Amino acid sequence: MNARGFSFVGGASGGWRVTRVSRVVGEGLEDAKCVDVVGANLSSLPPDAVWVLRGTASYDRYVTRQEKNRLNSEQPLLGRLEATCAALIPVKKSPEWWQLAHDERRAIFEERSHHVQTGVKYLPAIARRLHHSYDLDEPFDFLTWFEYAPEHAGAFEELVLELRATEEWNYVIREVDVRLVR
Amino acid sequence: MNARGFSFVGGASGGWRVTRVSRVVGEGLEDAKCVDVVGANLSSLPPDAVWVLRGTASYDRYVTRQEKNRLNSEQPLLGRLEATCAALIPVKKSPEWWQLAHDERRAIFEERSHHVQTGVKYLPAIARRLHHSYDLDEPFDFLTWFEYAPEHAGAFEELVLELRATEEWNYVIREVDVRLVR
Repeated sequence: MNARGFSFVGGASGGWRVTRVSRVVGEGLEDAKCVDVVGANLSSLPPDAVWVLRGTASYDRYVTRQEKNRLNSEQPLLGRLEATCAALIPVKKSPEWWQLAHDERRAIFEERSHHVQTGVKYLPAIARRLHHSYDLDEPFDFLTWFEYAPEHAGAFEELVLELRATEEWNYVIREVDVRLVR
Repeated sequence: MNARGFSFVGGASGGWRVTRVSRVVGEGLEDAKCVDVVGANLSSLPPDAVWVLRGTASYDRYVTRQEKNRLNSEQPLLGRLEATCAALIPVKKSPEWWQLAHDERRAIFEERSHHVQTGVKYLPAIARRLHHSYDLDEPFDFLTWFEYAPEHAGAFEELVLELRATEEWNYVIREVDVRLVR
């Protein structure tokens, strides 16, 4: 059992109720009433499930020590009582992105798109866990799970729009935005 | 089916015959007569198999555009007729390694351990494919597969010893070295 593996199961039941699903780019996801977050890499679709997306909470691909220290000191844990809103945003990037060398991806990700710098602005309001799926046999490359209190819903909207307007997002070829409440 | 997923199956049959298995650090691997290289992420142990190791041919985690261009222009493909010798070297790194920020890992990997620079010295003699397993539910983090002609066996030995003497290798907590012939 991979302790870093997570599965997001869309279906009739689960700990989070879906309030909205938006197809941002490319193919969407089938309608599901609920999402269940399971701390394991499920090998098959559970009964009553419509879809399952898998990813691994992994090591940092781009952040520097300075950025990591800042994130570690400011980012909240998941599971805060007041954070009753969540978002699951699965993203797939293009083959062109993955064929770039590391320094080219880093320059787009941070020096030009300010991905970390933008995220930090919304701390500690918005908690986040990134799951990597590129090395798995999965339809998306990343699954990001966000949790926030209802009063920060506007800030979360801003964060998402800000990231989608970056150069980095030119490489996104599929994105779905699933909003949930507990 | 993940076209980048590979499985290395140790057992009674397969395209490569095992000539030697060395436990370099940590736990070894059970004895197998042959290794079969399968272009798929097998979900279970095939009949007659003793072990199966899985990994994904993935994007570059550290190399710069300059290094990538050099590798692309000099590294040979797998499957050369004369390359009848192979090595499968599964490696696992410590939690300390994975908790480092990217810039710290890059500095150890290349600026101080010269991983790419060392590999380039042995091109085009030694062909190589790296498979990432850290995000999978696997016992190793990397599986590297090498192919070379018998006359380059000495050069291969040098390459392996040179890498094992680096600072990067201080973070290796498990390593097995499987040598094979076609």
